[in-house]
Amino acid sequence: MANIREIAKLAGVSPSTVSRVLNNSGYVSWETRKKVQAVMEKLDYVPNLNAVSLKKGATKLIGIAAPYLGDEINTFLGNFAQAAQEKGYNITLFLTNADPKKERDALESLRRRQIDALAVVIRANDWDTIAQYSKYGPIVTWQRVIMKEIPSVFMDQYEGYMLGLEHLHAKGYRKISNVYGNPGHLNTIGRMEAFRDFCRKYCLNEHALPHFYHKGSIRDGEEMAHWWKNTADKPDAFMAPNDRFAAGLVSEAKRLGLNVPGDFAVCGFDNTDIARLLDITTINYPIGGQARNAFSIIQNRLEGKTIPLTGLKFELIERKTT
Amino acid sequence: MANIREIAKLAGVSPSTVSRVLNNSGYVSWETRKKVQAVMEKLDYVPNLNAVSLKKGATKLIGIAAPYLGDEINTFLGNFAQAAQEKGYNITLFLTNADPKKERDALESLRRRQIDALAVVIRANDWDTIAQYSKYGPIVTWQRVIMKEIPSVFMDQYEGYMLGLEHLHAKGYRKISNVYGNPGHLNTIGRMEAFRDFCRKYCLNEHALPHFYHKGSIRDGEEMAHWWKNTADKPDAFMAPNDRFAAGLVSEAKRLGLNVPGDFAVCGFDNTDIARLLDITTINYPIGGQARNAFSIIQNRLEGKTIPLTGLKFELIERKTT
Repeated sequence: MANIREIAKLAGVSPSTVSRVLNNSGYVSWETRKKVQAVMEKLDYVPNLNAVSLKKGATKLIGIAAPYLGDEINTFLGNFAQAAQEKGYNITLFLTNADPKKERDALESLRRRQIDALAVVIRANDWDTIAQYSKYGPIVTWQRVIMKEIPSVFMDQYEGYMLGLEHLHAKGYRKISNVYGNPGHLNTIGRMEAFRDFCRKYCLNEHALPHFYHKGSIRDGEEMAHWWKNTADKPDAFMAPNDRFAAGLVSEAKRLGLNVPGDFAVCGFDNTDIARLLDITTINYPIGGQARNAFSIIQNRLEGKTIPLTGLKFELIERKTT
Repeated sequence: MANIREIAKLAGVSPSTVSRVLNNSGYVSWETRKKVQAVMEKLDYVPNLNAVSLKKGATKLIGIAAPYLGDEINTFLGNFAQAAQEKGYNITLFLTNADPKKERDALESLRRRQIDALAVVIRANDWDTIAQYSKYGPIVTWQRVIMKEIPSVFMDQYEGYMLGLEHLHAKGYRKISNVYGNPGHLNTIGRMEAFRDFCRKYCLNEHALPHFYHKGSIRDGEEMAHWWKNTADKPDAFMAPNDRFAAGLVSEAKRLGLNVPGDFAVCGFDNTDIARLLDITTINYPIGGQARNAFSIIQNRLEGKTIPLTGLKFELIERKTT
């Protein structure tokens, strides 16, 4: 392949002029630039952009590490990618399957300057391991962690969940079953704390009704409708782990001839399109705003800017299932 | 930063031994490897992986160029990324906003060997421009194109759409309105051809009822319910451009007190979760299978393999809206 010296010779300019054309830096007259580019075109010269990137210290690539794609993570990813793209960055996606070794690939990419920064949507390694890599470039996360090395765009689910519980209480529901995701996750722990405080406030027995764990899919929701039909001591309301579960529950209840909210109320979480389509009361969880804030944190650190973050809050969206 | 020569000196080995350790190639005894790695660790030496990649000719990164994220593209991307990840590849995402210049970034990345291959989900440049880059690495697309340089995993929408039309006819519907996406897209052209042939076969006047273009969102579907309510010459069935539109139409019809399929039938397209939740008749369009086939084509070309592609077909999923 041709090199800079050959191009310079054929174009009748110095190698440093060719370099200035390549790097788009310093002054080069329009005629000279055209001449150099014509020679490059003729020789089918491909600049080694990796080398250029290393020299400049910016790949304009930001990594995203996530265990899988789908649902809320897609919303986060889509908004993050859109924000990044508007500022001239592309995204490299590392699907980890929650495997620490695969997440290590993403962290090593940061260390090796193949990416400028990394958004760890949901982590696989412990935070101390991840924090060690922050010296190589900015790392942000969607999860709850308090570490100066890893800024977080986490929103405390306690607050959002409490909005739903208070709403059910105001509507007269007293026999609430909580359906949770993974009880090991901090998001779930926040929700469980909210329910405990809620019961204390209204003098309710928090163990009066069964609660459920590790639920979240449409199918889980559908199965819950059958459980409700066949159980003796029936709850009069469900706090769902997300809108998908709520949608499965509401649609299957209808198929079984049950009445929502007559037989039982359902409050979703996230405020996705599905909740709107099925008229499900839900909690608006601004995932897109969190993702855009995550990108702003990275951009601020990479470019030395001080773009302010958007203030975000949970909101109750009342529809027809409560 | 430390270089290979310094490491070699401190470890008491030759520079070529250090290089063999770095590249994981050739024989190095276990003791020597450990000694070299200890020195690297001590000096916090970061191998220049971009240079390593260039030498080996494989970045293990595959580019995906798409105009935006959301809906069907997310399904394609998720399945493609999953298949790639299982085979040790990561994904670099280029969001183009349908801007040819931004797609050119993705093509230039292929030319500059920053990615090994490129999946052009929905193109922005003309095919001839894109085809010129196929000499730098495999390019596949989801769209309909017949070019030996650009293999396509496209499925002819004519066939799938005809399944829906024949189903409506068999159910007794004769006043069908078609709601199309972009009439310039080949997918839409295939659907329009299907309707023309369908009308010819059953001696129907294809212009008897209004048809719609550039529709596809939930809101578009909601607005169509209002249109139906207020129009004089009402269709008795809608062929929707996708499940989101169908879901908007069906859910808003319900809010307006209309009866589906009593007042009008609705056939969706894609067979997404939304159609299942709302019991909408739809056409199963195996997007995930197409994405996995797209990855297999790339893997076959990159690794000289002959992994067979999965045979895919459209299927009618009959539910409660027809």
